[in-house]
Amino acid sequence: MKDYKFSRTALRMKSSIIRELLKEAMNPGMISFGGGVPDPETFPRKELAQIANKVISEEYSYALQYCPTEGDHVLRKAYLEYLERADAITGLNLDNIIVTVGSQSALHLISEILLDEDSIYFVSKPIYLGAASAFALRSTNHEDLELQDDGINLDRLERRLAEIENAGEMNKVKFIYVIPNFHNPAGVSLSLEKRKKLIEIAEKYDLLIIEDDPYGELRYEGEHIPSLFKLAGKERVLMFRTFSKVLSPGMRIGLVIGHEDLVRKITQAKQAADLCSPSLTQRIAGRFLEKYDLRESLKPTIALYKMKKDLMLNELEKNFSDIPGIKWTRPSGGLFIWLCLPEGFNTLEMMEYGKKNGVLFIPGVAFTIDDSCENCMRLSFCLPPEKNIIEGVSRLKKTVVEYGKMKGLL
Amino acid sequence: MKDYKFSRTALRMKSSIIRELLKEAMNPGMISFGGGVPDPETFPRKELAQIANKVISEEYSYALQYCPTEGDHVLRKAYLEYLERADAITGLNLDNIIVTVGSQSALHLISEILLDEDSIYFVSKPIYLGAASAFALRSTNHEDLELQDDGINLDRLERRLAEIENAGEMNKVKFIYVIPNFHNPAGVSLSLEKRKKLIEIAEKYDLLIIEDDPYGELRYEGEHIPSLFKLAGKERVLMFRTFSKVLSPGMRIGLVIGHEDLVRKITQAKQAADLCSPSLTQRIAGRFLEKYDLRESLKPTIALYKMKKDLMLNELEKNFSDIPGIKWTRPSGGLFIWLCLPEGFNTLEMMEYGKKNGVLFIPGVAFTIDDSCENCMRLSFCLPPEKNIIEGVSRLKKTVVEYGKMKGLL
Repeated sequence: MKDYKFSRTALRMKSSIIRELLKEAMNPGMISFGGGVPDPETFPRKELAQIANKVISEEYSYALQYCPTEGDHVLRKAYLEYLERADAITGLNLDNIIVTVGSQSALHLISEILLDEDSIYFVSKPIYLGAASAFALRSTNHEDLELQDDGINLDRLERRLAEIENAGEMNKVKFIYVIPNFHNPAGVSLSLEKRKKLIEIAEKYDLLIIEDDPYGELRYEGEHIPSLFKLAGKERVLMFRTFSKVLSPGMRIGLVIGHEDLVRKITQAKQAADLCSPSLTQRIAGRFLEKYDLRESLKPTIALYKMKKDLMLNELEKNFSDIPGIKWTRPSGGLFIWLCLPEGFNTLEMMEYGKKNGVLFIPGVAFTIDDSCENCMRLSFCLPPEKNIIEGVSRLKKTVVEYGKMKGLL
Repeated sequence: MKDYKFSRTALRMKSSIIRELLKEAMNPGMISFGGGVPDPETFPRKELAQIANKVISEEYSYALQYCPTEGDHVLRKAYLEYLERADAITGLNLDNIIVTVGSQSALHLISEILLDEDSIYFVSKPIYLGAASAFALRSTNHEDLELQDDGINLDRLERRLAEIENAGEMNKVKFIYVIPNFHNPAGVSLSLEKRKKLIEIAEKYDLLIIEDDPYGELRYEGEHIPSLFKLAGKERVLMFRTFSKVLSPGMRIGLVIGHEDLVRKITQAKQAADLCSPSLTQRIAGRFLEKYDLRESLKPTIALYKMKKDLMLNELEKNFSDIPGIKWTRPSGGLFIWLCLPEGFNTLEMMEYGKKNGVLFIPGVAFTIDDSCENCMRLSFCLPPEKNIIEGVSRLKKTVVEYGKMKGLL
């Protein structure tokens, strides 16, 4: 055929920089601070192998069969109990929870059920690029809220909402999307004060908050901050959780918790999107949750990641404190550090130097819709072993100095 | 919140009749010819339990981790080898195959990358309702091709294409969607002559054929007919396969085989849709394919389903031959029989009588976009045990007679 006549949506799609980068990460000798993938040694493989064996042998008529679109009732029930135990979230039933193929699928379904071409939605800048790509499939009218040390800029949110209301376009505003804990890529968290203020604003304008929380369980220090969902309830907040960072991404289990009307509509969309998630991985996760205390089982993971995070921060301090204008975030949890070089640096361009020196990072532009943040980069500390963190940061320094001198910036 | 401001797409979505029906199927004493779900006793649970245990224990750093969007290379390689062995399809490489979350996800991705709001596509009437719902999300301009005993009406296809060409609208026609083997819901197959003719027409108008083949491996009698993909190649045909009917639906593994340009675009769409399919179920399926001969392992399943199919046909003959104007298909494979009552019967209305009598079927309207086929129904024979097939058909007869008399049709 000469032409498959792709849709307009398809013609807008492009492969992500991260995806291309991760291929480079396979090269021998390369140290990658790129992907946000967990350390496989943290997966509870013995427990999962045993449960998988049992579930397939004994529960095959469920675990190998089609599953209801909403998901496995064993997993949903166990997760609601976990939410009650771990976060004191109560008053929910099976109509308030649906299982998706990872959080990415939840983002995609939300985009489908909420966004029209002219819809407006609020996101952070920088933004998690999986969210950006899912939302952009339906509408490109994003409103960006700059990330500050304590989360998104709420003054800007209020100002823009007032303007949109004055323009009589509030009916077009569909949601505010936030990653409140240990933001990807920025590493920052939304403070308690700002959470309360955000809810106040959302109440005032009757807006839905989408709370994407893949990293909240990976806190390394500091006090737990209650979730927006806990603070404002299911009427106002739709919460995304996932097992990808706390159990296994290869099981592809996302969970959406919220008002029954939203869950019902997501279910209808999921019927057309993939009929149902795998019964097998859901039942395995459900039995795992019943048998083990997830928070308890995460303790060694948290200790490992905290050590790696502290090491990377330490190495950054050692190597980069002599470069004026450089700054980076100091996350209390999650997987990412966001490092910004002085204006003039272009991290996308600098990647070639990095590759030559054997170190990978994700350039900031990958996390913006308008190709800004070009002087920034995302560094992930969870996968590389300790000696590679030390060596990798040293290679990064070399890369920055080489590029900076070549450009006359240093 | 007063209003979640759903998208126009979301407002068009509705829950499927089948879904609602399947809830009824749980009632004790109910005999269901409803869902197209395999008999769980056909799942190779011992083999899968063993493989799952091994894969999680030994290949955890792959099987529990994120997977490339295209899918597990072990599974893709094994499947290409299987296609070569079983169907003599050669000349393909890993760029020609992508793994999806069941075929439903493939239908959804295809809809996304090919259809705009004004796009035209050809489908059968009746149509597999999963396809109808996925395509309708993007465009409702379906062109229906009535199913005959040897497959879709190609005269109508040619006539409509000529008309569309005359109207200068060929650029809007995106694909022809066919289930060539043991159609769902109609049970009929596209003859070899018609396959050749269909390819000729597609060549003439430079059109893509989407060949959805979930049931081709479940042939109970008669000669194998080569696939459209085998006959016309990857330039012309995009082929969907699935493990749902031949291994386990609960693993949610669909496979899309076709031209690298199409596979690449589907990959981009899948990145935004769900990032990747579960590595775990893919690796299990891949190792299963390497270790066992899938065709060989299917023999007991085929023997079981053939027996059930013959039994149901026999019972239909015994019970219904005295009703003038009734007819049903006699499939050589797959899971479904399509039964049409004389004009005047309304099977959706008749369902209430069926429920009262303890028998479930899917009314024909569920498989049409224009609510036609109201005198028909789909009967699935694969799940109920023998005695329930006998008793169920007898209950169906009672239901038809009761309804027919009440309506003055008998």
